[in-house]
Amino acid sequence: MTTSQSFSIPNKVNPDLENERKKCSFLVEDFAEFWHEGKEKLSEKRWREDFFLNDPEMKSAVPMEYLSHKEKYEEGVRKSTIGFRKIRELRSLGKDGIDNYMALLSGMLGSGITPDGNPFALHYVMFLPTLMGQGTPDQQAEWMGRAWSCHIIGTYAQTELGHGTFIRGLETTSTYDPQTEEFVLNSPTLTSYKWWPGGLAHTANYAVVVAQLYTKGQNHGIFPFIVQLRDEETHMPLPGIKIGEIGAKLGMNSVNNGFLGFDNVRIPRKNMLMKNAQVEKDGTFVKAPSSVLTYGTMMFVRVVIVRDMANYLSKAVTIAVRYSAVRRQSPINPGEREPQIMDHVTQQLKLFPQIAKSIVFRMTADYLWNMYNQVTSELDKGDLDRLPELHGMACCLKAIVTSDAAQAVEICRLACGGHGYMSCSSFPTTYGLTTAACTYEGENTVLLLQTARYLVKSWASAKIGETLAPTVAYLGRNYKDAVKGSRPKWDKSIPGIISAFQTCAAGKVNIAFDNVERRKKEGASHENATNMTSIELAAAADAHGRAFLIQAAYASLQDFLKQVPPALGEVLQDLVTLYAVHASLRHLGDLLRFVNISEADIRELQATLEALLSRVRPNAVGIVDGFDIPDGILQSALGAYDGNVYERMFAEAMKSPLNQEPVNKSFQQHLKPFLKSHL
Amino acid sequence: MTTSQSFSIPNKVNPDLENERKKCSFLVEDFAEFWHEGKEKLSEKRWREDFFLNDPEMKSAVPMEYLSHKEKYEEGVRKSTIGFRKIRELRSLGKDGIDNYMALLSGMLGSGITPDGNPFALHYVMFLPTLMGQGTPDQQAEWMGRAWSCHIIGTYAQTELGHGTFIRGLETTSTYDPQTEEFVLNSPTLTSYKWWPGGLAHTANYAVVVAQLYTKGQNHGIFPFIVQLRDEETHMPLPGIKIGEIGAKLGMNSVNNGFLGFDNVRIPRKNMLMKNAQVEKDGTFVKAPSSVLTYGTMMFVRVVIVRDMANYLSKAVTIAVRYSAVRRQSPINPGEREPQIMDHVTQQLKLFPQIAKSIVFRMTADYLWNMYNQVTSELDKGDLDRLPELHGMACCLKAIVTSDAAQAVEICRLACGGHGYMSCSSFPTTYGLTTAACTYEGENTVLLLQTARYLVKSWASAKIGETLAPTVAYLGRNYKDAVKGSRPKWDKSIPGIISAFQTCAAGKVNIAFDNVERRKKEGASHENATNMTSIELAAAADAHGRAFLIQAAYASLQDFLKQVPPALGEVLQDLVTLYAVHASLRHLGDLLRFVNISEADIRELQATLEALLSRVRPNAVGIVDGFDIPDGILQSALGAYDGNVYERMFAEAMKSPLNQEPVNKSFQQHLKPFLKSHL
Repeated sequence: MTTSQSFSIPNKVNPDLENERKKCSFLVEDFAEFWHEGKEKLSEKRWREDFFLNDPEMKSAVPMEYLSHKEKYEEGVRKSTIGFRKIRELRSLGKDGIDNYMALLSGMLGSGITPDGNPFALHYVMFLPTLMGQGTPDQQAEWMGRAWSCHIIGTYAQTELGHGTFIRGLETTSTYDPQTEEFVLNSPTLTSYKWWPGGLAHTANYAVVVAQLYTKGQNHGIFPFIVQLRDEETHMPLPGIKIGEIGAKLGMNSVNNGFLGFDNVRIPRKNMLMKNAQVEKDGTFVKAPSSVLTYGTMMFVRVVIVRDMANYLSKAVTIAVRYSAVRRQSPINPGEREPQIMDHVTQQLKLFPQIAKSIVFRMTADYLWNMYNQVTSELDKGDLDRLPELHGMACCLKAIVTSDAAQAVEICRLACGGHGYMSCSSFPTTYGLTTAACTYEGENTVLLLQTARYLVKSWASAKIGETLAPTVAYLGRNYKDAVKGSRPKWDKSIPGIISAFQTCAAGKVNIAFDNVERRKKEGASHENATNMTSIELAAAADAHGRAFLIQAAYASLQDFLKQVPPALGEVLQDLVTLYAVHASLRHLGDLLRFVNISEADIRELQATLEALLSRVRPNAVGIVDGFDIPDGILQSALGAYDGNVYERMFAEAMKSPLNQEPVNKSFQQHLKPFLKSHL
Repeated sequence: MTTSQSFSIPNKVNPDLENERKKCSFLVEDFAEFWHEGKEKLSEKRWREDFFLNDPEMKSAVPMEYLSHKEKYEEGVRKSTIGFRKIRELRSLGKDGIDNYMALLSGMLGSGITPDGNPFALHYVMFLPTLMGQGTPDQQAEWMGRAWSCHIIGTYAQTELGHGTFIRGLETTSTYDPQTEEFVLNSPTLTSYKWWPGGLAHTANYAVVVAQLYTKGQNHGIFPFIVQLRDEETHMPLPGIKIGEIGAKLGMNSVNNGFLGFDNVRIPRKNMLMKNAQVEKDGTFVKAPSSVLTYGTMMFVRVVIVRDMANYLSKAVTIAVRYSAVRRQSPINPGEREPQIMDHVTQQLKLFPQIAKSIVFRMTADYLWNMYNQVTSELDKGDLDRLPELHGMACCLKAIVTSDAAQAVEICRLACGGHGYMSCSSFPTTYGLTTAACTYEGENTVLLLQTARYLVKSWASAKIGETLAPTVAYLGRNYKDAVKGSRPKWDKSIPGIISAFQTCAAGKVNIAFDNVERRKKEGASHENATNMTSIELAAAADAHGRAFLIQAAYASLQDFLKQVPPALGEVLQDLVTLYAVHASLRHLGDLLRFVNISEADIRELQATLEALLSRVRPNAVGIVDGFDIPDGILQSALGAYDGNVYERMFAEAMKSPLNQEPVNKSFQQHLKPFLKSHL
């Protein structure tokens, strides 16, 4: 705005927000310690955030949203390399640790520094772990040092243009040539091109490539190979390597997702990762002793995703709650000042259940994480019993939580009206990050159907009175009632709600199971019967996961209530209860169908919901403050700690390159000739 | 990809898609005529599309998604001026008409040519209509000619940084000075800055500005004023005008949304639009004879929005259906070829109800349009009776349809897996266009509550046995049952479903009404009681609108069944039925609560749903072909008519500026120094 003054950002907190902070019934610092797992981890986190965010080099001269696609990548590389250089600095201070990498790559810190994603993420998140998990000691010796110190940058190239979640369908071939003791990689079709791997386009010079292994004329399925993509000095693609970027996307535009094709690319035999299966010099294929080992990483990633979703959502809800405390609009009582929009009860219904979801998703992620650790420690002892159960749970939770979190981010955005649509709100990038998780690492519907498969098997076991794994034990308890169609009485306590959701899940498993069986009796193959019943199967898996979410959060709540100050305990209790009550009303159709719930019970649920919204109202700003997300990570004019919403929106607008000149060149080029023409 | 060949796009249609087109049970051309309102309009549309889309100047050298924010605007201006120049060309051919403007600005053609929005839209959609609707004959004589021929470009500046939907809260002042016979415009606060108007930033040189009128020391509410913003020759902002753009957004980034502040800007008295209220030379304020006249435009715009949503959704669903016919993934039966993903029943559940929504939204828009015309013709005769009814219906339908359409676009996108996330799918821009409508022209929750107010009044009338307006007549019929809590029997026919949805709506109105009354008896003011009950009030309005959607579509269907060939009639019948059945299952909680529906009925509904999905399956591609959206408008690699999905994705990627060089400059600048450093 070259023709006028700009509005400077006041050096004080918005009075409405200040007032909210006085109303809190608990200590915000107690919440922050709860959320960040104790005093020590919280102060480490804060130290790390200061260290990374206060570096002036970490700021972009022009905000990312104004850059071209190419510039976004270049700025992403600049900031990422500075970030990793700072980690090296920490190393020299003895402060090195995996937490720093995690924070920078998949954590909140990363989402603040590189809001459009990090082109190095897959180097740390997939390339290194794959070397560690699937390389022999020799291979680790050869590659790990150089990769760990970033003298080479890798990515993980699995997904192809034609195949994603169904990985057995991958088409890239790796054919062993015993003559030269090499594998020859080829992309036989257009759809066999690798497509999507982050950092693949212009950043990585190495990749783990997943390909169909052929030796002695036989296909043995898919295996991982280390392939050099670019010259280490010139960064030019090596002969036979066809590589580039896949183009602009809804979000995550500095991740540098790439494509990759092979034209007779030869790699030495030792580049097949051979910790499990092997190809000997003469081309003999040696099978892996067990095929379950590769499950581990997949499940680990899904657990991490659930946690990420809780974090991204906490960001969205922080913005929406603070904005709703500052924004005043639409009088409730005539003659009175316009209220803070958070005083409109419909606004409370938009915001507070999303706060509750952040908490419940996070508690569930931690619960799942413990389960994961327990199962993998059993795995190491050769006990595979709980693996299908964990797999079943991780699949449906990834699906439900990513989908709910993405929708919740949009609810928060829309709760901020038109202003939420602006990039400076930070909602668009947050949505981009969140919704991406609905399709990566296993498409959500496919995952639900994988859980359903486990549920149907468990149902068959329940039928013959077998003992079931802990997370599906309720199927055994509900089996008889479900088959008889009897509806247990509604009990409004949280354990009662959990039990009601389990009853619904069991009821849905029962229906899906019966319909598969009926269709088989009518002549369909098991697979066709399953496909024909897949709507009900997916619904059963969804119900199963939803019951578990309340159950895990409730179990976690009981633990926390013993640890945290009573005032904070009450807040957590309110939020978990709000989640359960809100979920009950959202899934009222299920409750009415499978549980004996009366009209009076429903009205009481609604009254409880409204009472909980009132209870959360005075604490809402305190709770989101307790997420402890600094402005440098939040990156939001609407959600900044000081609540100077309008000044910050103005300041962000003034950074637009279009605002650096009063008249844009298109006036002379296009507009004036058009206005002045008299055709 | 400089190191390898590109994949050229085959000159033939994908065989799977070709096969689908053979399976159709109806003539696609019949559908196209139905959708485009007859043979003649369809051929006009096709002629217009050819005329605009085949002009090589209309193509962008580099696709918009790779441009910077500034470049997006510049390209938007370039294309828009060419578009309007072509309209002038048509005028000289005698083919001028409002349809051309509409198509270019809010219609499908515009969404293809300027997918990120048009900076001139408000000139045609708001500036010109406001001059026409609220200017005196003298004012029209002065302004209309220059505006119509685009010698001046206007916008409509109403929304401010601090106030959107609640327009009475606007803060910009226009104070009459009888000394000079001028109005003096001022922006007394930061929040009074105009914020959001399209084209305001760097495009328009005039604006209709809505401001609080002060004369003789008194405030008279908000009125429209014509204000010159920029010099007509130099385009420089005039003295006292503070103007610029508001920054990047989730979508619509070439709309050039602007801000505007006034510092003692003086305009002549004749610049107040005085068809209704007036200010005389001496400053005397003369009230408008009736305040309802301004309602008209608002309602008109909401009807247009409902229609736009049907169109945007038809685009999303075209892309998703064609892609789902071409994409093959995840075998159903082992040993068989991977099926088209449209053969997975869960995929059908994602896609086909969205096709049905397009049709139902469109039929409802047309129904509402007729109602609008009828009511306004009555208005002209001085009959205001049906105005509140129309207002109540337009409010809730705008809210429901925009919200459902935005969600439906995302369902379509997610149904395409990761590839839907790519800009070249066209989903991200389509979502940006669609979701924007949830907050503009009246925030959705505020609109639902406006409808609720009308429903509560109607309920009070029903209580005392008064005759109700046609769209709420069902409240009278259901009044006694709702109060008694008796639940009518479920009837699975469409009229039965309509009646069931009306029963649910009446039940919800009853509950909300009772709760408002109860709270008033407990001592709350009417306004506070309303706010406390607002969750249930909004739910009642939602249920009311949903009943109407099925009712309007069903009524429209009956008309079409008499006009269209029987084979097409069957398809339309299937789609409207699918909409009704799908809605019933989505709102099962309401049905179980207010209607006497049994478990057997529910299972039958589910079976009907699955049967309808099977019936739509062979016709799906034919139906979306019938929307008749040319590739130039669809702009989607996933949805192109020929189904060469993968070749087109590759071709789009190759247009990325990042792919024009094998090594990006950030390698030398940042990456290499980082890789080679040994800190």
